[in-house]
Amino acid sequence: KINGERLWDSLMEMAQIGPGVAGGNNRQTLTDEDGEGRALFQKWCEDAGCTMGLDQMGNMFARREGTDPDALPVYVGSHLDTQPTGGKYDGVLGVLGGLEILRSLNDLGIKTKHPIVVTNFTNEEGTRYAPAMLSSGVFAGIHTQDWAYDREDSEGKKFGDELSRIGWRGDEEVGARKMHAFFELHIEQGPILENEDTDIGVVTHGQGLSWTQVTITGKDAHTGSTPMPMRRNAGLAMARVLEAVDEIAWSHAPHAVGAAGHIEVFPNSRNVIPGQVVFTVDFRSPELDVITDMEDRLRVEGDKVAEAMEVEIEYEKVGGFDPVTFDEGCVSAVRNAAERLGYSHLDIISGAGHDACWINRVAPTAMVMCPCVDGLSHNEAEEISPEWAAAGTNVLFHAVVETAEI
Amino acid sequence: KINGERLWDSLMEMAQIGPGVAGGNNRQTLTDEDGEGRALFQKWCEDAGCTMGLDQMGNMFARREGTDPDALPVYVGSHLDTQPTGGKYDGVLGVLGGLEILRSLNDLGIKTKHPIVVTNFTNEEGTRYAPAMLSSGVFAGIHTQDWAYDREDSEGKKFGDELSRIGWRGDEEVGARKMHAFFELHIEQGPILENEDTDIGVVTHGQGLSWTQVTITGKDAHTGSTPMPMRRNAGLAMARVLEAVDEIAWSHAPHAVGAAGHIEVFPNSRNVIPGQVVFTVDFRSPELDVITDMEDRLRVEGDKVAEAMEVEIEYEKVGGFDPVTFDEGCVSAVRNAAERLGYSHLDIISGAGHDACWINRVAPTAMVMCPCVDGLSHNEAEEISPEWAAAGTNVLFHAVVETAEI
Ligand SMILES: NC(=O)NCCC(=O)O
Ligand SMILES: NC(=O)NCCC(=O)O
Repeated sequence: KINGERLWDSLMEMAQIGPGVAGGNNRQTLTDEDGEGRALFQKWCEDAGCTMGLDQMGNMFARREGTDPDALPVYVGSHLDTQPTGGKYDGVLGVLGGLEILRSLNDLGIKTKHPIVVTNFTNEEGTRYAPAMLSSGVFAGIHTQDWAYDREDSEGKKFGDELSRIGWRGDEEVGARKMHAFFELHIEQGPILENEDTDIGVVTHGQGLSWTQVTITGKDAHTGSTPMPMRRNAGLAMARVLEAVDEIAWSHAPHAVGAAGHIEVFPNSRNVIPGQVVFTVDFRSPELDVITDMEDRLRVEGDKVAEAMEVEIEYEKVGGFDPVTFDEGCVSAVRNAAERLGYSHLDIISGAGHDACWINRVAPTAMVMCPCVDGLSHNEAEEISPEWAAAGTNVLFHAVVETAEI
Repeated sequence: KINGERLWDSLMEMAQIGPGVAGGNNRQTLTDEDGEGRALFQKWCEDAGCTMGLDQMGNMFARREGTDPDALPVYVGSHLDTQPTGGKYDGVLGVLGGLEILRSLNDLGIKTKHPIVVTNFTNEEGTRYAPAMLSSGVFAGIHTQDWAYDREDSEGKKFGDELSRIGWRGDEEVGARKMHAFFELHIEQGPILENEDTDIGVVTHGQGLSWTQVTITGKDAHTGSTPMPMRRNAGLAMARVLEAVDEIAWSHAPHAVGAAGHIEVFPNSRNVIPGQVVFTVDFRSPELDVITDMEDRLRVEGDKVAEAMEVEIEYEKVGGFDPVTFDEGCVSAVRNAAERLGYSHLDIISGAGHDACWINRVAPTAMVMCPCVDGLSHNEAEEISPEWAAAGTNVLFHAVVETAEI
């Protein structure tokens, strides 16, 4: 078993970097705080005897050698970046859980046949730079590196420039590494495991995601002196589209969800009827047909609103991935580990996107989940217990070591 | 008659300061550009032989002496600040029209009994600092100066500090000046005069305004892994309140308008269900009862939405004024001037708020309006013709000089 106390201490130490305003974290990708978090992780890995690789997307790879020089490494990890009002565990548990495996192997003096590599993928969250899971996506060949470098944050700062600025742009070609397998431990970010009083989620599938950025253009005008019939209020049009998004998602519930988390209004002045709004609709479902249907209906309903209100509407797909089926062998390794360790477990579908969803395209992949309090995530109040963290990491440990062979 | 060409040239020269992105202006209050605009106005006034007064709210007073040392001055003016995507005439025409009167009096060698003072009131627009007409409001005793100094912009910068920073915080006590009368020329910002092919609006009334800042608090949560029934989506709740705002305003149309121009969403991340939104509802009507009814219904409908969606809702009145009836004598002076000069004219109600609405509380006040293209204002494409500007300024000239007595 791993050392749960040490794992927890490391989680708490990492959470000191980029503290939030309400007990959580604001350590967004490619900020100075992200750089600090990376440096701490690198130090810990080096202390554990690893060598650190860094690719051109800033993905980090801490390697513990295996006994067979020809064996491909088993990879394990997640991400250290957080939401602007994020929790202390989303992503971090997966990276530091991976590190804890290496530390435990060192403690136990165990050598594995395959090397084990702990990864930290850059910009998983997708807040500063859409899409989410950007760098695991480049690794898996989904996006080109040039395209990723050109992504801009809301201030127009480019991903590539910011990566250089914080000093974490490596030389290694992205995606050149071949993996024997990939495992990711993550908090569930949903309520199922806690509600079912279950220790471990064996993640068999991941639901798919679609991000559509909607731009509605009306006409800036005075809120006082513009008669109601002359208004082309982009903000009101947005309200109607948001209502449609909710209806569309509910029509497929419980097999779909939908909302808009990102909304910008221009010129955003109390006495100017909004001339333009930009917002991003997030639709998800484990079924590809459902996602496609929701995307289509968003356009139909959006067009209807736009026509009725004489505003322009444009749609741009700014992120997404199809529903994922994880590798049967890796999933079994997770389930067997939970079983062997005597943890209660449940097969579940990941509601969130994860680096594992992209890595699954290029290597046999599976995920381990642990519960989180009230299913709450992407909130500074995100919470887990040390016991849940330890249980998840123990399952990860056994699944990884079984796959890496002793 | 005034010199229309000189007036137009000055309007165009002022518009060089703080240019917008689409032909208009972004010269928001207490920015460096506001400071530059003030300096240009001061230079012009001094060139016209005036002395400049500056009060502790940054209100500017360019004085041309009268022949009677005991006569109270006739004041004329408006504001030089603009919306973030504002036009070249909103406010500016009223200030530079006032200046043109002084220049024309100089040209004609006319001395008036009462001094004439041209004013530039600080922060009329209310974009950076709510409420609008902040400094004429302090002048009229509606707000205290301390309260005004404490207003914060979206970055937390205080009004008082920014006024000092740009170097336009004067020594003069605010509101100490007594006025014989006040006249304000302004573009209509609505479609009536142009539609009626009329040169001059004789403003008899101003409609009242109510700004309610609404804060809805739900719960930040993951857009992917949070089941639909568990969501407390503050953004969706806002959408429903925006719809209610529109319905409430329409229910009183054409005697009311309503919209929200200012919307902020937190944490504003594509994959976080909004945990909080803050937005400002702008309701207006020439009838106080109607405004009160709309405010009440906003709270009723907002509370209903909040209860149904299990979110918190709070309301704060952040600005407003009751409907205004302008001074009969001053209004007649405007109407007579239009008549005398042979301009077509129409009695109208101002749809927007103006410094004149507050000054009306402390001095006999009236307004002159000229048409603007398509009734469009608070938009960089705001446009008027040189002829409209000259006609409005001629009427202002005659009304002011008649009141100031030769
Ligand atoms: N796990 C997680 O929160 N990933 C961010 C990408 C997503 O929105 O699902
Ligand atoms: N005239 C004008 O646009 N004033 C700003 C205050 C208001 O919103 O009415």
